[in-house]
Amino acid sequence: MSEPSAQSPSPKQLGPTQFQDFISKKPFPLELGGELPELTLRYETYGKLSPDKSNAILVPHAISGDHHVAGRYQPDDAKPGWWDGFVGPGKAIDTDRFFVIGINCIGGCRGSTGPLTIDPRTGKPYGGYFPEITLGDIVRAQRLVFQHLGIKKLHAIVGGSMGGMQALLWSGDYPDEVGRIAVLAAGLSQSPMAIALNAVSRACVETDPQWRGGHYQPGEGPDSGLAIGRMISHISYLSSTAFDQKFGRAKVLGAKSNDPVYWEVESYLKHQGTSFVKRFDANSWLRITRAVDRFDLTARAAAGQLFKKVGPDVLAIGFSSDWLYPTSELRMVVAAATAVGVNAAYLEVVTDAGHDGFLIPDTGLSVRLHAFLG
Amino acid sequence: MSEPSAQSPSPKQLGPTQFQDFISKKPFPLELGGELPELTLRYETYGKLSPDKSNAILVPHAISGDHHVAGRYQPDDAKPGWWDGFVGPGKAIDTDRFFVIGINCIGGCRGSTGPLTIDPRTGKPYGGYFPEITLGDIVRAQRLVFQHLGIKKLHAIVGGSMGGMQALLWSGDYPDEVGRIAVLAAGLSQSPMAIALNAVSRACVETDPQWRGGHYQPGEGPDSGLAIGRMISHISYLSSTAFDQKFGRAKVLGAKSNDPVYWEVESYLKHQGTSFVKRFDANSWLRITRAVDRFDLTARAAAGQLFKKVGPDVLAIGFSSDWLYPTSELRMVVAAATAVGVNAAYLEVVTDAGHDGFLIPDTGLSVRLHAFLG
Repeated sequence: MSEPSAQSPSPKQLGPTQFQDFISKKPFPLELGGELPELTLRYETYGKLSPDKSNAILVPHAISGDHHVAGRYQPDDAKPGWWDGFVGPGKAIDTDRFFVIGINCIGGCRGSTGPLTIDPRTGKPYGGYFPEITLGDIVRAQRLVFQHLGIKKLHAIVGGSMGGMQALLWSGDYPDEVGRIAVLAAGLSQSPMAIALNAVSRACVETDPQWRGGHYQPGEGPDSGLAIGRMISHISYLSSTAFDQKFGRAKVLGAKSNDPVYWEVESYLKHQGTSFVKRFDANSWLRITRAVDRFDLTARAAAGQLFKKVGPDVLAIGFSSDWLYPTSELRMVVAAATAVGVNAAYLEVVTDAGHDGFLIPDTGLSVRLHAFLG
Repeated sequence: MSEPSAQSPSPKQLGPTQFQDFISKKPFPLELGGELPELTLRYETYGKLSPDKSNAILVPHAISGDHHVAGRYQPDDAKPGWWDGFVGPGKAIDTDRFFVIGINCIGGCRGSTGPLTIDPRTGKPYGGYFPEITLGDIVRAQRLVFQHLGIKKLHAIVGGSMGGMQALLWSGDYPDEVGRIAVLAAGLSQSPMAIALNAVSRACVETDPQWRGGHYQPGEGPDSGLAIGRMISHISYLSSTAFDQKFGRAKVLGAKSNDPVYWEVESYLKHQGTSFVKRFDANSWLRITRAVDRFDLTARAAAGQLFKKVGPDVLAIGFSSDWLYPTSELRMVVAAATAVGVNAAYLEVVTDAGHDGFLIPDTGLSVRLHAFLG
């Protein structure tokens, strides 16, 4: 077994990867009411499932991520999957040993059933009629994929941000079906300030005249509102120090005093916003941010119904400069787990990267995660 | 002399106050080029100017404040001026002893020359044609009021946030004309993250179709964009703990899962946004936030040209949970001042209120400020 090598080129490159679709024709009931008449879940796997199917690791994605966790579809893809620094041969989540799976969440826009999907009842995209969902729905849908694959128990779930929330939900809802969870940069509930940031982001979308109550035509959506909404979120993913280091007070070369894009940081954020619009659907953004805002396991944790002594081990990983999900929230996860006798540990990654720290390769984190996965 | 009583009803109420306009018909040149052909500065005073005119204290306002610092115009006004907790008879800034003055900044929309003002050259409001301004321009315009009043040297300037930046500029530009400055919740420059937040706020205004490049008709402005822009700023004025305490995860009573206003915090922010639009002009918001973003005295401070030994004493006051202008920035003000031999001290107010902490009466702060003013 090689050492994790997140910060150096991996000894073996992952070959071109491919996604698959799991399709269920059975109605999928939703926690807040209603149902999806059928369900598609797009997923991608890395490594080989062992004969006893005991080596599967789920890596649920964050708010704007997808099933493409690692590797490249084509060797010349500009970027690999979003957690390629951690997932691959010899890396923290070693695909020489584990069968790793990424699944696009329902409500998303990267292949799984979401607002862009055709509603079989109408023959048209759900669009603004896509129902409200919860992270519990997202997790319950993921479970169908594992049933389909014949996997009765996951070796582990490793998730950051919204992915960490899903790991916690698995722990509470299916404690016998997962061996350990690693929760990065998330807490037991969405904080009121995090809700506030999402609320403003949604307001940007919903006040864009092109939103039309969600009933926009493909290609005619609220691009401007979604771009600005993403800019707001993007600020919350960084830290003040990261802004200092990345941009400082640099001005755009040649900018005049009344130019609308005057600062480098302004230019960067606007670029992030417009890039995001090209790969994300506004109704998906609304549904998923609302699902995240609803996330609240504090009462279940307090009642001893989230962590069970027979349930998964817990590793909670906080990032020192994360102000969206501060390290105190990760320590609370550990406190709640240890209070009921669960094996739980806390790791703090000292970083200036803010919430996005969980996306950045870090040797200490990789070594610890590698060890936790056994 | 009575003790400051910011947290209890003041022993004597300020009577109905009144504002005045200073009008200059001379062109006022601007730092970034161009000029204002004439100038109106709306100001309000409290207390009596001493015969030798040595007891004047300027209280410059923050980004959305104005000249109405304290007192009520009518006894039944719903609210007094924005810093009434600190300014009044027997309060921290004791109007029994000092002549306190508030001045609406140029570029604003509360009576001083700004985008809503009629441009005498065209007979129409400046609107989108109002020039770009700097905080240096704002300070230089204030100085005209003091020249008009025959005040050669201010006893003190006490300012929070953008008001603190103005106090620092006075110290650098007119060190012989002010005796001491108290800087609350501000630093030597606008940080890149604070610029980022303002940039997104401006983008909300500038992408509202009703903005029309700034050339909107009165009453037909970009209300929706300005409201959301203000919501973003408002988040940055609070702290995560303040959000926890004020709202928690409370839902709006009776809200359905797909209601656009679902959370109490969402309802609060939307209310703040729509209220703001009623009292503020979008072009003023753009000009003033840009002026704040340009604020950068770090090079002058490093070159010893901001604080001079013969210049004003400095009291820098940080608020522990302020993440927009963190306490480290206030400590840097003190470090820069003491490095050149200026009398400078730092006070930290421990509060959960975030940046808005400087607006909230606090006995310790009042006592310290009272003592600093001598």
